Amino acid sequence: MTIRALVFDVFGTLVDWRSGVAREAGRLLGAHAPALDAGAFADAWRGCYGPSMETVRSGARAYVDLDTLQAESLPGVLAQFGIAGVPDDVRRELVQAWHRLDAWPEVPDAMGRLRERHLLAPNSNGHVRLMADLARRNGLLFDAILGAGYSRDYKPRPALYRDAVAAFGFTPGETLMVAAHSNDLAAAASHGLSTTHIARPHEHGPAGGETAPTVPVTYAARDLADLADQLGC
Amino acid sequence: MTIRALVFDVFGTLVDWRSGVAREAGRLLGAHAPALDAGAFADAWRGCYGPSMETVRSGARAYVDLDTLQAESLPGVLAQFGIAGVPDDVRRELVQAWHRLDAWPEVPDAMGRLRERHLLAPNSNGHVRLMADLARRNGLLFDAILGAGYSRDYKPRPALYRDAVAAFGFTPGETLMVAAHSNDLAAAASHGLSTTHIARPHEHGPAGGETAPTVPVTYAARDLADLADQLGC
Repeated sequence: MTIRALVFDVFGTLVDWRSGVAREAGRLLGAHAPALDAGAFADAWRGCYGPSMETVRSGARAYVDLDTLQAESLPGVLAQFGIAGVPDDVRRELVQAWHRLDAWPEVPDAMGRLRERHLLAPNSNGHVRLMADLARRNGLLFDAILGAGYSRDYKPRPALYRDAVAAFGFTPGETLMVAAHSNDLAAAASHGLSTTHIARPHEHGPAGGETAPTVPVTYAARDLADLADQLGC
Repeated sequence: MTIRALVFDVFGTLVDWRSGVAREAGRLLGAHAPALDAGAFADAWRGCYGPSMETVRSGARAYVDLDTLQAESLPGVLAQFGIAGVPDDVRRELVQAWHRLDAWPEVPDAMGRLRERHLLAPNSNGHVRLMADLARRNGLLFDAILGAGYSRDYKPRPALYRDAVAAFGFTPGETLMVAAHSNDLAAAASHGLSTTHIARPHEHGPAGGETAPTVPVTYAARDLADLADQLGC
């Protein structure tokens, strides 16, 4: 099977959300919470991510983007850490933390190699502007932005995998879903996509991250450079 | 009003569809129609474009992409030119002609200049793969692919302008629709977008093209380089 297009999970797979959110939380909340454990704050906020998306996936509400969901979950996280009196403009800046994340070190170069012979797009739960901002910040060049904004739903709903395949027009098997999360890859495989697991042992900081897939995959890679090697790029 | 994002019409505005389709028609149909007026063939095929999109815009059928519409209108165009016996694989190659169009000469350099301070996306009736192929062929770097594929409808339906604004998240006035066609710009302006008309006096070959807007616009430009100059890029 020749791979023609690669579609990527982004948070955790291409970018280090925990360090970036912790950095911004420390910077923006320092005056309000001098002793803040910023990594734990990032973990807690990220922990709201699944339940908040579920309100859209279940059909309980119409699609809203991830900025909206992060803004809605922020007050609960602030309360959980006992942080009061954060002005609205600082809250808005905190939501922008998710637009200011750095790629894992090997990603920009490896993406350039992969781009030479494949079409590339994020297939993330982040929306267009969020993906565009992360791409610009890290010098990543995508051929399109697919995912939640394109499908108006959230992974692992079927639309995101089906739409990602249809948008580039290759067969599902020619379309490679790349993620550091086995549940994402299992969903992609159920729609016929080829799959790559990327080990991200530091995604969750001290809590680790997936070092190997827990489901069958087409490729398992140590990092994105290893995937480029395996694809002969 | 500061412009933050530019969204582009593509066929006629960024790429010369008539020369490209004529070149491919001449190449692929030479054996079947040695005396073909390839430019007239391109014009006739392009003439089917509006009516075929109208079947989607009217709600008479669900969204299908432009490749599908071009493939559906091709038999009628071949018959109109008295061309018979074209095999299916050649017909498929002909549809691919629309993926093999060249940008107007100043476009790649001007797009590079515009990209330094703005987010850029096509807002075309072409779908994701078609836009990705044209971008790759001509060395254009977009931040996203908006338009028909993203909105599952065709211009000038409101969804395409509203979705293009929402995808980048700036205000309508900060979002600049760039087109060589006054009807597209009138529709964009009706949704509050800023607008630029690009003169394309050779779009339709001997039949000319719009040299100036027939509706009020924010900017009127001789070409895309002139727009980059006017925006101070």
